[in-house]
Amino acid sequence: MIIEVRKNIEASELEAMAMKYKAIVVEDYDRKLLVGSSSAKTIDTKDERHIEKHWVFDNDMQLSSRKFMPNTRNISIGNFTTGKDETILIIGPCSVESEEQLEQTASLIQKCGLKSLRAGAYKPRTSPYSFQGMGLEGLKLLAKMREKYGFSIVTEVRDSTHADAVIEYADVIQVGAKAMYDHGILRTCGKARKPVLLKRGFGTTIQEFVQAAEFILSGGNPNVMLCERGIRTFETKSRFTLDLCGVAYLKEHTNLPVILDPSHAMGYAYGVPDLARACMAMNVDGLLIEVHPDPSVAKSDASQQLNHKQFEELLNSLRPIAKAVGRHIV
Amino acid sequence: MIIEVRKNIEASELEAMAMKYKAIVVEDYDRKLLVGSSSAKTIDTKDERHIEKHWVFDNDMQLSSRKFMPNTRNISIGNFTTGKDETILIIGPCSVESEEQLEQTASLIQKCGLKSLRAGAYKPRTSPYSFQGMGLEGLKLLAKMREKYGFSIVTEVRDSTHADAVIEYADVIQVGAKAMYDHGILRTCGKARKPVLLKRGFGTTIQEFVQAAEFILSGGNPNVMLCERGIRTFETKSRFTLDLCGVAYLKEHTNLPVILDPSHAMGYAYGVPDLARACMAMNVDGLLIEVHPDPSVAKSDASQQLNHKQFEELLNSLRPIAKAVGRHIV
Amino acid sequence: MIIEVRKNIEASELEAMAMKYKAIVVEDYDRKLLVGSSSAKTIDTKDERHIEKHWVFDNDMQLSSRKFMPNTRNISIGNFTTGKDETILIIGPCSVESEEQLEQTASLIQKCGLKSLRAGAYKPRTSPYSFQGMGLEGLKLLAKMREKYGFSIVTEVRDSTHADAVIEYADVIQVGAKAMYDHGILRTCGKARKPVLLKRGFGTTIQEFVQAAEFILSGGNPNVMLCERGIRTFETKSRFTLDLCGVAYLKEHTNLPVILDPSHAMGYAYGVPDLARACMAMNVDGLLIEVHPDPSVAKSDASQQLNHKQFEELLNSLRPIAKAVGRHIV
Amino acid sequence: MIIEVRKNIEASELEAMAMKYKAIVVEDYDRKLLVGSSSAKTIDTKDERHIEKHWVFDNDMQLSSRKFMPNTRNISIGNFTTGKDETILIIGPCSVESEEQLEQTASLIQKCGLKSLRAGAYKPRTSPYSFQGMGLEGLKLLAKMREKYGFSIVTEVRDSTHADAVIEYADVIQVGAKAMYDHGILRTCGKARKPVLLKRGFGTTIQEFVQAAEFILSGGNPNVMLCERGIRTFETKSRFTLDLCGVAYLKEHTNLPVILDPSHAMGYAYGVPDLARACMAMNVDGLLIEVHPDPSVAKSDASQQLNHKQFEELLNSLRPIAKAVGRHIV
Repeated sequence: MIIEVRKNIEASELEAMAMKYKAIVVEDYDRKLLVGSSSAKTIDTKDERHIEKHWVFDNDMQLSSRKFMPNTRNISIGNFTTGKDETILIIGPCSVESEEQLEQTASLIQKCGLKSLRAGAYKPRTSPYSFQGMGLEGLKLLAKMREKYGFSIVTEVRDSTHADAVIEYADVIQVGAKAMYDHGILRTCGKARKPVLLKRGFGTTIQEFVQAAEFILSGGNPNVMLCERGIRTFETKSRFTLDLCGVAYLKEHTNLPVILDPSHAMGYAYGVPDLARACMAMNVDGLLIEVHPDPSVAKSDASQQLNHKQFEELLNSLRPIAKAVGRHIV
Repeated sequence: MIIEVRKNIEASELEAMAMKYKAIVVEDYDRKLLVGSSSAKTIDTKDERHIEKHWVFDNDMQLSSRKFMPNTRNISIGNFTTGKDETILIIGPCSVESEEQLEQTASLIQKCGLKSLRAGAYKPRTSPYSFQGMGLEGLKLLAKMREKYGFSIVTEVRDSTHADAVIEYADVIQVGAKAMYDHGILRTCGKARKPVLLKRGFGTTIQEFVQAAEFILSGGNPNVMLCERGIRTFETKSRFTLDLCGVAYLKEHTNLPVILDPSHAMGYAYGVPDLARACMAMNVDGLLIEVHPDPSVAKSDASQQLNHKQFEELLNSLRPIAKAVGRHIV
Repeated sequence: MIIEVRKNIEASELEAMAMKYKAIVVEDYDRKLLVGSSSAKTIDTKDERHIEKHWVFDNDMQLSSRKFMPNTRNISIGNFTTGKDETILIIGPCSVESEEQLEQTASLIQKCGLKSLRAGAYKPRTSPYSFQGMGLEGLKLLAKMREKYGFSIVTEVRDSTHADAVIEYADVIQVGAKAMYDHGILRTCGKARKPVLLKRGFGTTIQEFVQAAEFILSGGNPNVMLCERGIRTFETKSRFTLDLCGVAYLKEHTNLPVILDPSHAMGYAYGVPDLARACMAMNVDGLLIEVHPDPSVAKSDASQQLNHKQFEELLNSLRPIAKAVGRHIV
Repeated sequence: MIIEVRKNIEASELEAMAMKYKAIVVEDYDRKLLVGSSSAKTIDTKDERHIEKHWVFDNDMQLSSRKFMPNTRNISIGNFTTGKDETILIIGPCSVESEEQLEQTASLIQKCGLKSLRAGAYKPRTSPYSFQGMGLEGLKLLAKMREKYGFSIVTEVRDSTHADAVIEYADVIQVGAKAMYDHGILRTCGKARKPVLLKRGFGTTIQEFVQAAEFILSGGNPNVMLCERGIRTFETKSRFTLDLCGVAYLKEHTNLPVILDPSHAMGYAYGVPDLARACMAMNVDGLLIEVHPDPSVAKSDASQQLNHKQFEELLNSLRPIAKAVGRHIV
């Protein structure tokens, strides 16, 4: 249940109501909300004088629902704003490997007229014996690119031990698929105001995915974007299975912008262009595509990254599809 | 292993080679092939004089592979041919319910300038207590539509007891997801020449899916199209999960045309338009979309069928995407 | 809905009621049942005089439910009867390969004091280039073993083209995982009286699995046993994932005997003994275990078959577990 | 690759070798190991004088493999040691709710002659609107039970923000299914010496699961136990699907003790006894079973917890199965 309280409510009354409804107090833009469990359905008539409006729900997808907020949220990344007629292309290598590598990527982004750079500094590798990322040094290199080129930086927090560092350096805080249930990260993101790009865990249902977003939203950060990046199924010819049916559900039922990542879903560069075009045709707010100056020497995810020439060809093919669905690419 | 034998080989020699290589003799257009297990890798030098060409493979995707035949097969349905720059839209209700219903669908197809009608006469329902289809009477109604309007008819064989009837009445024999492993059906289709639209089982890997196509191809019917219609995953918000990563694999590695069915994957009409656009952007040979004059009264799959107005809007939005990927819709 | 009609109802009245409730007439032992969709919930008061008893249901698990029949069905295979304190061990090779092979298996069965022999004559292989089974000749070899040793023969029907032959030669008709949705087979089995061992499709939900059994039960054959043999999941270290949680559900909610097949689930002989012991501890009516005189030369499923020595050791370890759960092995 | 270095190696030489082989230095009991990626296969002959022994591997399951250490690790929890002929039963409620509740559980444990108490203080709930656990206060109540009764305490770390607190209060640090990829937690556990009970993520492959254990092992803590608790599949009748095929793999290929949790897998109390018996028959080192004085009022996982009477009956039925597989229950 969400209760929007009147502006003139006193702090003590608000606190009393929060206790009564076992609700979290959320500052949502210029209004105050009490958000309780969806199992709560009824309002005490004595409280009606404090209540501007209230909503009841079938499940714990509440702040994120179109029932609560009919339009897609407007979240700004640089000059771009979600929920309008633009689609953001966020590109870059899987991992920050060196300044030279980032410079090459930056040239590509500039040449293509794009504005956003993604790369990981803390890599959540499944094996302790693989490259684990450059850490803080990687974050600093990304920040350098922002200063030099004006790009928005999208980078990943792996676990809560370095969440503050990522929040400090990034323009968009990416929460990776493996970190999606990490309450430490979710709560830290809830206290930030920077946009959060929350990736779906590969074993995570849509319901749980949106509930993870609710942790951040109810923590006070209204700027959450959802990223579908493939789920784990029995099929082994691709790395994961991109769940566009799930995306259709998210678009219909939630007010959160949707970003799609075909690179991690497919796991092989040959399939990324077709999938990226399909993602564009889904009429979503953004695409995340892994691009590397020379994928064959990449320190992580070598097989799925496009080289620069492949990306430019892809971009050219995306523009008419974007137009067909009423979008333009930034 | 595939061996293309010289045209002058004698019948007894061919038979001897077939036994030696434990191979099936396949008439492939104007040439004769011996197709053995992919585990066979070497040719007896004594046989070289009979051999025009031969191919070895890593797995049992052989006749279907781009290694064997680099271009997508050209399979004709009416005036449409796969593997070129056209995409076929095959629409119609889940089940044949009455002549009136089919007449309404036929009007829509004509109005839209399309050429193909799909509907099931034998329904493979999961419950014995649900509507099981009109059977032979349904096939006859479909044939009536072909005669009246010149449409190509796509309809499903449920089990081998009525395979011959479907082959007689249909222009395209649809093998449904639940029948995909049915050797009786696969072998019967292998003896036919009509195009077969083979749907992927929802628990079937890409490898097994293509191997089911190999049953038909090695039976002597070169006209097999693959249809992805959603696989079963842990996600329950949609009926199935459309596997476009798998489609990217099929397009890269097989010579079989690909048809996509977003209706069964999603299971809910609201998501079908977005998904159909994504499918179109995948640059495939065809789309299968369930359309019903009044979905609310449909005897099967009521929730996922578009009404006629919804379909016309969808079609209008598909055309520019088709154009963007170099296709036009028929 | 299931309606048990009074014994004195006239044929014309029964027929009228069947039409009214869109119900199937089922001869269930010595009584007549009308079985309609579970969506039917109410009885016309005018019909009450014809009705002995009736049941309504939440879903189409009806004849198979413990609500309809509280105790596990008693189905006889030779001297063994399900639903009592015995567990049947059905062993043998994946495929009939030769008479010598079956004789070796028969010796093992006799030595172990068991009574049932399983082997496939029609193999539902996923590749057309693999061994497809000995067919009718295999059935005849199995029948020979029955005559010589008195064993019950369990063998598989692959598709409806040879269903009658299998029904003629087998004591228990096995419907394999890939044939589980085959309406031709299910209906043919419904007209038989011999016990049917219905294997769960590897992509099949418990709900659909039991509904396939309902096809046979509502066809008039009350002798259906369910066999869990592993479902397809994302895990690739084993061939399939044995779903014992699903078995717990089946035991709680259905009246159908449960048989478990750890061999196909695991796919590797090393894991079969541990899993077979776990299956025995689940307190089920039977186990199906693949055993081959020399697994290394088996023409199918070589990796998962136990050799005879391994099986004898396993059997010795199963007996005390059987005793612990109140069963003895036959 | 694992290299066991000679005891007389100098620190500078060890460091040089670590850099050369990009290896982690691991203190493994009384010896020093260099552990590098499994892609490293060859030793520089110049280094042979420093090397006692070395192992190469096909994948990054190294320290955990039976190839490296043939016998199951001996890890002590109170008087119990893994890898011998005892199986530990760890029982208790899902969440610490109050001291009274824990006292009731403690009485049950004492009555049954068991030694271990499990309960969560930090609950990784999927919804922010559900009960999140008692936190530090819960840990203190658990510690009180240890002091009073001498039980070993098993409790969960949810995210790295409170990892140190859990490590301080627990006897066994449980890493939950949702935290299994949390590098912050894994690294913190690697620096501890207390036994870690690592639960498999429900979307996690066996390969990734064991690699998560490698993070802890290579961090210097040799005391890791693996806990299978059900994976996510398409089946919805149970909460998860207990993967005993995966357990057979773990037992065959790894040296890590295995603990099974049938409660979370099933999600419904009715199925837990059968599954617990199956788990016991798998011949594993431990079982984790949720027990609550009154499950109907539990603040989390109400449906899957056994009441005390049910547990006592289960325990009686487990003893003969334990005996049958050569174990006794502690």
